[in-house]
Amino acid sequence: MSDAWINESLYEAWGQRFRVKRELARVKSEFQDIVVFESETHGKVLVLDGVIQITEGDEFVYQEMLAHVPLMAHGAAKNVLIIGAGDGGVLRRVLQHRTVERAVMVEIDGAVIELSKQHLPGIAGDSWTDPRADVIVGDGIEYVRTAPDASFDAIIVDSTDPIGVGEILFTDAFYENCARILTPNGLIVNQCGVPFMQADELHDTSLRRAKFFPHVSAYVAAVPTYVGGFMTLGVAAKGTSRETHSVETIRARAEAAGILGTTGYWTPEIHVGSFNLPPYIARHLP
Amino acid sequence: MSDAWINESLYEAWGQRFRVKRELARVKSEFQDIVVFESETHGKVLVLDGVIQITEGDEFVYQEMLAHVPLMAHGAAKNVLIIGAGDGGVLRRVLQHRTVERAVMVEIDGAVIELSKQHLPGIAGDSWTDPRADVIVGDGIEYVRTAPDASFDAIIVDSTDPIGVGEILFTDAFYENCARILTPNGLIVNQCGVPFMQADELHDTSLRRAKFFPHVSAYVAAVPTYVGGFMTLGVAAKGTSRETHSVETIRARAEAAGILGTTGYWTPEIHVGSFNLPPYIARHLP
Repeated sequence: MSDAWINESLYEAWGQRFRVKRELARVKSEFQDIVVFESETHGKVLVLDGVIQITEGDEFVYQEMLAHVPLMAHGAAKNVLIIGAGDGGVLRRVLQHRTVERAVMVEIDGAVIELSKQHLPGIAGDSWTDPRADVIVGDGIEYVRTAPDASFDAIIVDSTDPIGVGEILFTDAFYENCARILTPNGLIVNQCGVPFMQADELHDTSLRRAKFFPHVSAYVAAVPTYVGGFMTLGVAAKGTSRETHSVETIRARAEAAGILGTTGYWTPEIHVGSFNLPPYIARHLP
Repeated sequence: MSDAWINESLYEAWGQRFRVKRELARVKSEFQDIVVFESETHGKVLVLDGVIQITEGDEFVYQEMLAHVPLMAHGAAKNVLIIGAGDGGVLRRVLQHRTVERAVMVEIDGAVIELSKQHLPGIAGDSWTDPRADVIVGDGIEYVRTAPDASFDAIIVDSTDPIGVGEILFTDAFYENCARILTPNGLIVNQCGVPFMQADELHDTSLRRAKFFPHVSAYVAAVPTYVGGFMTLGVAAKGTSRETHSVETIRARAEAAGILGTTGYWTPEIHVGSFNLPPYIARHLP
């Protein structure tokens, strides 16, 4: 048994720590420091610049809520754009939906994809070779700048926090282009951090998205290793606000898409309920 | 700025850590090791036997969900028994309800009460001197053994995990007496841990309560410093299961009780939604 610990460095004076069973990779890519290690409690863990990104043990919570909520809120998404998410877990959840005809994934750091394929193969499963998947190692900003108008029904941004490599994904120009390349009923979702620790993130991102989208809302998920209570996921929609569907509607859509009963966290009830924000979170929305 | 950290020791190979601004108390009571320190991120923090119990920053989440959910699910609770909860935060939330005529609090460790009064006075506020409050330093097991039949409408157990001093609060004898001293529509709630890390706790406690109560259910809360995703709170009710009330009913009760608009986490929507368990938690219920 090892006595080595990895301390998450996301916050200066509080955080989680893992006892390390075995370090599997430590790479300095063109963009960031990447560590993959085997923990004693959460399976294998991917760390970028000192921040826990995903663990085998609890990845289902984040991936399901990031992928299934926007797709079920839309109800008929055929073309989906994923930005970031180099571990492939969002891609796998998106491809679960029978309605999806094409999933484009743009990850800036090829090293994250390679290390995930090597050490975390269960997270993406066989998504990498799905004929509906188009995996691009490239710049998501550039991709949305040059993509045709109205070419996607949903955009899922699985970024790091707005520090370091992910920062540019939270700018005006990025959201403006996202609005342009979405279909009239299209929507975009992105993680907005853990409000108990990072309240500004939800506030600032919501203000920025409100410049380009008529409907801005947020929902919550309790992700075990994004410590600090609920994390928020922000939704911005071009068409009518789609988050208020009934449990019955969402269930019918999930059944048609083939995801009902496949999940560990997401359910139609949790989908609808996740838009009810605790007051301590709601007050950060514009 | 201090370089001292306090590592929570609840789990052997994973946990949270706080940078300590100032240690305020370190006491070995008759029952447990008690530490109170000032953190840089969460205000003052109370630690029992190495496990974080409450922080000033996020105590509202746990206290509101532990107190308001059973009282609003009951709808007309006059006599409330609180076991544990030496910091006084549950007592304060219970006394907020205009309907409550008497709140008996039985805490085994007088040192926890004294240290909370001294260092965390904001958590209980003026509850200690409320004429409806009866604060007893004593054994909760013994209290429920000798209390008259049908003398309480609700019992709220704010215990440590079923290790150490709190262990005896999770026994058959305890639940049997609780069922006896509750009124016909009475209910009991107690924390059942964080299922992602402590799945057995919810399972075992639910099985035990099912021996003495016809209605056993559970609800969830995302408490920032009970790290590991949702914690569960278990409900056992003598009368008809009370957890399925509509948002409208709960809102009307909250308005009558005087708690609407006073909360940071609890709302009627969150109350009702919190009984929708993610599948990874629901499968641990008997």
